[in-house]
Amino acid sequence: MTEDRTEALVERMLARDRTALARLMTLVENRAPELPAIMSRVYGHTGRAHVVGITGPPGAGKSTIADGLTACLRAAERRVGIVAVDPSSPFSGGAVLGDRIRMQAHFLDPGVFIRSLSTRGSHGGLARATRDMIRLLDAFGVDAVLVETVGVGQTELDVMRLADTVVVVLVPEAGDAVQVMKAGLLEIADVFVVNKADREGAERMHSELVQMLHLRPSGGWTIPVLLTQASASTGLDAVRDAIETHRAFLASDPEHAGRERARREGELLDVLDEELRRRVAQRLAAHGSDGLAPLLDAVRAGTVDPYTAALRILEDAPTLERLIGREE
Amino acid sequence: MTEDRTEALVERMLARDRTALARLMTLVENRAPELPAIMSRVYGHTGRAHVVGITGPPGAGKSTIADGLTACLRAAERRVGIVAVDPSSPFSGGAVLGDRIRMQAHFLDPGVFIRSLSTRGSHGGLARATRDMIRLLDAFGVDAVLVETVGVGQTELDVMRLADTVVVVLVPEAGDAVQVMKAGLLEIADVFVVNKADREGAERMHSELVQMLHLRPSGGWTIPVLLTQASASTGLDAVRDAIETHRAFLASDPEHAGRERARREGELLDVLDEELRRRVAQRLAAHGSDGLAPLLDAVRAGTVDPYTAALRILEDAPTLERLIGREE
Repeated sequence: MTEDRTEALVERMLARDRTALARLMTLVENRAPELPAIMSRVYGHTGRAHVVGITGPPGAGKSTIADGLTACLRAAERRVGIVAVDPSSPFSGGAVLGDRIRMQAHFLDPGVFIRSLSTRGSHGGLARATRDMIRLLDAFGVDAVLVETVGVGQTELDVMRLADTVVVVLVPEAGDAVQVMKAGLLEIADVFVVNKADREGAERMHSELVQMLHLRPSGGWTIPVLLTQASASTGLDAVRDAIETHRAFLASDPEHAGRERARREGELLDVLDEELRRRVAQRLAAHGSDGLAPLLDAVRAGTVDPYTAALRILEDAPTLERLIGREE
Repeated sequence: MTEDRTEALVERMLARDRTALARLMTLVENRAPELPAIMSRVYGHTGRAHVVGITGPPGAGKSTIADGLTACLRAAERRVGIVAVDPSSPFSGGAVLGDRIRMQAHFLDPGVFIRSLSTRGSHGGLARATRDMIRLLDAFGVDAVLVETVGVGQTELDVMRLADTVVVVLVPEAGDAVQVMKAGLLEIADVFVVNKADREGAERMHSELVQMLHLRPSGGWTIPVLLTQASASTGLDAVRDAIETHRAFLASDPEHAGRERARREGELLDVLDEELRRRVAQRLAAHGSDGLAPLLDAVRAGTVDPYTAALRILEDAPTLERLIGREE
């Protein structure tokens, strides 16, 4: 795509053209080479949306919570973006299709933009794509971005690091507090929700969590543990309020600024890393930019191992420059 | 660690010192900066072991199959390495602890080396660590490396690409053939195993799979669908035979050589990518190698966005050289 065309696409997206937004999201999902230029253009229009992560084990009712929160936010005339991230297999995420169908309740609402993301074969690219999608929605002008994951694996935890406020949804059957700790959820939760609160064990799970949180240094924010019955829309207002309260807390939290600084630096590292990898891959595929061809052939043939070849390339400034320097 | 000490460690590992192997594995797990040098030294001693991936949905009995295969291989006096990869959360992988305890059956056997890998917070590093562990076990002198995953998410599929032969284990309750396709298992399977074959639906799943495989271009290898009852050690010999047959097929398959070439090139890209990322991260953390400090400060403060900063760095050869060039 030419520079003019991507520029026109960004202009239209900033003017709230949904089709332009959808096309930019597809470029993000495909990790198009134009991305750094696009995102550099978009970035100045971001920073307004509150990013809310919603995670928890499969079947906890995350989508129902996201659905209910969206309804709350729409009632207050806020615009909402939803990114549903699904890195897992159908064996553990059987409810996704049903969830997506249910989310169609908001599908025709021009104040809601929904996108799901389930790239296979990407190289750690899911969290990066999610981050760029959040930025696009932010620049598009939504007030809140809800980022929802299907499960709680490694990829999902990476995705949750992108959120300002993380809501962890549990159900009584999800097991005990020890599992919550083992899944790394205690470190990332800003708000705990025990959903399906009408079921047996809800009160016990609630008090276990409250007790566990008492033992933990709070850093100024007291993590609330809320009971909901999302399918009956019970308790969702309290969740929305807790999210708002956490947002206000962040604005006044001196540590938050430091985390933001570190996050921006991490993002720079990620962008550099992705672009460097792209350049190396492209030029290796082009059969090694002249001087590299013999070494690359030796690696392919197995006569030089990949580690030795990498060390040779990394030690030799002109070769490295050919591989990752600016495109002519 | 000094170069002499890592060299000594590699020497001891090659002389079949288990403690040295375990220490090298820890370096691999921690992605130590010495890794390219270590692996470059190790690589020449690899290429002998057959790498068998064992994957499938949680609860399918993958560990029991791995256990049974290990017993078969040990009965034939083959040495076995096992890498158990667990990127998932305790919510979906409840059986892991029990499996590990059961694997202790082989724990005291000097012909078996078991290592589990469940790094959190790594950046796409789990597949890389698994690859390096396979290489170490190969150089250590095992005849077969069994790589076992807990579930079938994205990370697990990445890990399975490292195997010569992939065994996909299913159970009747795992659902229908459509799920198998959606999980991407059809593309990676070299051998299908329907475990817990005494349960209802086993025959139906078997014939569904056979039918589905008939519709698929085979590329010379006919994927067998085997029935097992691994907990009763029934059917495991047939699995071992199918793995051996597939190994022999690979040796004669003209396409295999091409895939090997592509795999080596991919490995070079991965090693380069990881080392470049390490250099950039280290030098950014050292507050931007002199000339970079003002730009880095602007990114941290939010006055220059990460994408724009990345583009500036990438366009400027001397800056890029400072960030990724050879260490002085």
